Amino acid sequence: MERVGVIGLGVMGGPMAANLVRAGFEVTGFNRSPAAVERLVAAGGRAGASVAEVVERSTVVLTVLPDSPDVERVVLGEDGVLAHAAEGLLLVDCSTVRPGTSTAVAAAARERGVRTLDAPVSGGETGAVNATLSIMVGGEAEDVTRARPVLQALGTTVVHVGGHGAGQTVKAANQLLVGGISGLLSEAIVLIERSGIDPAPALSVLAGGLAGNRFLDLKSEGMLRRDFAPGFRSELHLKDLGIALAAAREAGVALPMTGLVAQLFAALVAQGRGGQDHSAMLALIKGLSGGPTGAERGRRETTAQ
Amino acid sequence: MERVGVIGLGVMGGPMAANLVRAGFEVTGFNRSPAAVERLVAAGGRAGASVAEVVERSTVVLTVLPDSPDVERVVLGEDGVLAHAAEGLLLVDCSTVRPGTSTAVAAAARERGVRTLDAPVSGGETGAVNATLSIMVGGEAEDVTRARPVLQALGTTVVHVGGHGAGQTVKAANQLLVGGISGLLSEAIVLIERSGIDPAPALSVLAGGLAGNRFLDLKSEGMLRRDFAPGFRSELHLKDLGIALAAAREAGVALPMTGLVAQLFAALVAQGRGGQDHSAMLALIKGLSGGPTGAERGRRETTAQ
Amino acid sequence: MERVGVIGLGVMGGPMAANLVRAGFEVTGFNRSPAAVERLVAAGGRAGASVAEVVERSTVVLTVLPDSPDVERVVLGEDGVLAHAAEGLLLVDCSTVRPGTSTAVAAAARERGVRTLDAPVSGGETGAVNATLSIMVGGEAEDVTRARPVLQALGTTVVHVGGHGAGQTVKAANQLLVGGISGLLSEAIVLIERSGIDPAPALSVLAGGLAGNRFLDLKSEGMLRRDFAPGFRSELHLKDLGIALAAAREAGVALPMTGLVAQLFAALVAQGRGGQDHSAMLALIKGLSGGPTGAERGRRETTAQ
Amino acid sequence: MERVGVIGLGVMGGPMAANLVRAGFEVTGFNRSPAAVERLVAAGGRAGASVAEVVERSTVVLTVLPDSPDVERVVLGEDGVLAHAAEGLLLVDCSTVRPGTSTAVAAAARERGVRTLDAPVSGGETGAVNATLSIMVGGEAEDVTRARPVLQALGTTVVHVGGHGAGQTVKAANQLLVGGISGLLSEAIVLIERSGIDPAPALSVLAGGLAGNRFLDLKSEGMLRRDFAPGFRSELHLKDLGIALAAAREAGVALPMTGLVAQLFAALVAQGRGGQDHSAMLALIKGLSGGPTGAERGRRETTAQ
Repeated sequence: MERVGVIGLGVMGGPMAANLVRAGFEVTGFNRSPAAVERLVAAGGRAGASVAEVVERSTVVLTVLPDSPDVERVVLGEDGVLAHAAEGLLLVDCSTVRPGTSTAVAAAARERGVRTLDAPVSGGETGAVNATLSIMVGGEAEDVTRARPVLQALGTTVVHVGGHGAGQTVKAANQLLVGGISGLLSEAIVLIERSGIDPAPALSVLAGGLAGNRFLDLKSEGMLRRDFAPGFRSELHLKDLGIALAAAREAGVALPMTGLVAQLFAALVAQGRGGQDHSAMLALIKGLSGGPTGAERGRRETTAQ
Repeated sequence: MERVGVIGLGVMGGPMAANLVRAGFEVTGFNRSPAAVERLVAAGGRAGASVAEVVERSTVVLTVLPDSPDVERVVLGEDGVLAHAAEGLLLVDCSTVRPGTSTAVAAAARERGVRTLDAPVSGGETGAVNATLSIMVGGEAEDVTRARPVLQALGTTVVHVGGHGAGQTVKAANQLLVGGISGLLSEAIVLIERSGIDPAPALSVLAGGLAGNRFLDLKSEGMLRRDFAPGFRSELHLKDLGIALAAAREAGVALPMTGLVAQLFAALVAQGRGGQDHSAMLALIKGLSGGPTGAERGRRETTAQ
Repeated sequence: MERVGVIGLGVMGGPMAANLVRAGFEVTGFNRSPAAVERLVAAGGRAGASVAEVVERSTVVLTVLPDSPDVERVVLGEDGVLAHAAEGLLLVDCSTVRPGTSTAVAAAARERGVRTLDAPVSGGETGAVNATLSIMVGGEAEDVTRARPVLQALGTTVVHVGGHGAGQTVKAANQLLVGGISGLLSEAIVLIERSGIDPAPALSVLAGGLAGNRFLDLKSEGMLRRDFAPGFRSELHLKDLGIALAAAREAGVALPMTGLVAQLFAALVAQGRGGQDHSAMLALIKGLSGGPTGAERGRRETTAQ
Repeated sequence: MERVGVIGLGVMGGPMAANLVRAGFEVTGFNRSPAAVERLVAAGGRAGASVAEVVERSTVVLTVLPDSPDVERVVLGEDGVLAHAAEGLLLVDCSTVRPGTSTAVAAAARERGVRTLDAPVSGGETGAVNATLSIMVGGEAEDVTRARPVLQALGTTVVHVGGHGAGQTVKAANQLLVGGISGLLSEAIVLIERSGIDPAPALSVLAGGLAGNRFLDLKSEGMLRRDFAPGFRSELHLKDLGIALAAAREAGVALPMTGLVAQLFAALVAQGRGGQDHSAMLALIKGLSGGPTGAERGRRETTAQ
């Protein structure tokens, strides 16, 4: 059985490491803040004192980091994963980064006999805790086969979507869809509320037809209450839309709607809502048309039911 | 039991009238082209020779017409519904029109003692045939109660969403969501295909996560095959986005994404794809980035699986 | 010499009528509020008691009205221009309306032997007062020739751009350019101010290069002072963008940037700035990114000069 | 008098170096392809064999390079400008790069006692040849004073706009305006042409009013002839819009129109028009609405003049 290292034990990496312990793997974890490492130890894992120690104790290393520069530092940096890796190590990067970062990591690793996969995840903190993540894997088939037992301890859907970087591209496509649907749903709610219509029954009809979508199912109740506690933070979604547009640039394609959605998220973050859930887009779209909030106006104006 | 008249026996109105017959209602139908009336007679309904005859024989009249001017002509026109209506008639407009048309019709009808509801439907031809439509009803509660047995013969979801015009506003919100999702999904597919990734497994992961939506479930397989047979025609979706923007203007709200989506649909129609399914947006987004079609390019470029 | 009637003596029509008097024409004016008529009389014109009286006394009638429905009412309505017109009358509509309104008016007029031109103007109140308007004329060449002495009393540029409605189409193109430039200039200023740069010298460089434009020349100083007194009101610009998009629909073309600009103006009006100058777009774009106003922030943050 | 080094003798740097020779400066130039160096020698300059040699012979060094990575390599790289610079050298970067690149270069230079300015230019090849560039300078006032005699040999407008990076931010604002105006003008032309109107007289009216702008003055004639020979290449404009959006991200502001314009330029480049002038946006906007080109259609459809 593989010995698994996990570098990055935050909101996502922490529960993912714990799930690997639960699945019977020997897990060594490292995180810059020691509290996260202690939680892993309490869950039955081992503490790694450094990236080096994690790498030396493991046959498969997962990185679960915030952004491209973190991955580049931790993997390619002076005291990073590749500097300490033995030949045959399998490095699985679960971070959401640019496809170009994944292919660059793969190329550098290949020179040292290290195998790599990009395996970004979707499903949020809940998915990480409950091991119900969707995992989009890019890389070579034999490495996917090797990683599958590890990844299946983390999620319910593990799909090999293509070569190195393909996992990231599919994740980028996922994020442009989710971010765009947040914007469209916000426009629908604003139109409904400002027309003096009670939004709850209206959204229930939308949910039942061709407009139905998971974002509406999971987020619209909170949106109507203006409860924007994350969930998935707007500032991370802004970062992910930047990745989608960078991936589009590399692929030589134009994404007009995503170009606009990215600026709407930039506005959301600029308005100080970067720490709120990505469904807070409703507040931006509402504010764009000024005046009282929909909830207030709705209370005053809705008459007929 | 109500005697039901149906004016407009096209792709939607025809099967809706047949379902009313099946549900045991006495149904009189009228359509400008007699072939549609003959189909209703074959299904067990009665032929109306004119709008006047339908109205005189019915206690509830449904209109199922293409656009606002049609509704204004058939209802308010010289030889129209109101000209022949007895007091107490209930007029249910199932067409998708501007909310302002519905409130104008309601006001004109009230003067003659005629009750009205706006009751646009969602679910397409399939929903009309299978009586699985979603129906968004605007008007007064007692009229909704009265119409409910009729509407429940047509669809599985019948929701009273507000006063006169509210059904149309919710339908407009539905259409902006669906049209926008078509655009976003097209961008996702183009990004995936042009990156050399096999789109089928990629879309299966998207479908399983927060990006999941009914449009993807029902349309993406056809999109990957470039099968754009309608379904719901792009030119009708363009019309509906015009209604959404007009409703937004009346409500005093701005819909930035919808403003862009409407122009993308205008382009789709201008490119001669108005008669194709609204999922043909994929062809527009693909063409925007030029070069070979994704299917061709995908075949050449996809390597890893 | 033609006897000229002017219907609509508002902000534009009032000074235009006065300029016609100054140019030696016999001018009869009508306006719903009598104060405007009195001002024309004071300037040397004659008061018309009704549309009918203006038409009966004139060989050329100018209409200077707010929107399509006004033109339809005044020209085509029961007691309107056509109802009282003698054969050979030349009707010159200086209002900004849909091209379709102009062609409909032309068709109705032709039946009664009345000649028509659409001749919308650009240049604002200043242009109307100083007789420096630009006038875009649609209609037949001989009628343009006949109208030219009248129009040259109103503006410095009189160009025959095409058949009936063509003047309106070119005006629509003018308004989409101006509205879009207002948005782009606002984005440029926000980027500059929020980067802590003193905008006045920066804009002076922009004005000198390929980015240079008349809107910047005339409006940017006021924008930097947040002086949004009209000028040209945002709510009228919103109306004109609606005309541009309707004209695009009729021509079967897609205008993606204009679709977005129209929604930005819808937001501006929804935020209560409809009565402000169209350069108030700066306030919208600034507010989109939240925080203190640029002027305040600029004062605190600008350091180096 | 300063001895001036110029690194990068391409379309812009070549004529700029020649103008410095003409102004009486002793100029040493370096370029990777020797042909450009030979042209400088023919014009009276000296050949530098390497970056090192240019730096050692000069008191002021200008870099005129394509993009951020080039500047980073040439200035910060192993054998770059800073590695060979004596204390007191003034480095003036005339490239168009991210503001963040300029501030990073300034910080690295300061450690070695080297002074820096960012001084991107506007005005294209013509401006470089004729010494009529507009130059936006960021940095400290005393260095601007010192560089002014050099910069005034290159352009007619030299404005100190702020601290390090401010020149780049103003250039980014310039490029978002120019790119956006190219898009808006294209939409105006498409609307006019597809409405069957002769565009030349129509554009002459637009040029005379509030819509008037330098891009229209300089480019519209070529656009109507579909002559898209550069001028300024679309692929460079796409790069510059990327810089504008990156600068916006750093400043924490949202630019909705620029977000869309960038994707329109991405489409233009994806369609194989990256080597054409940025006014080729007309071809994209035209193609968006399909069908025959406007010129052809115009010939067939325009009737009235």
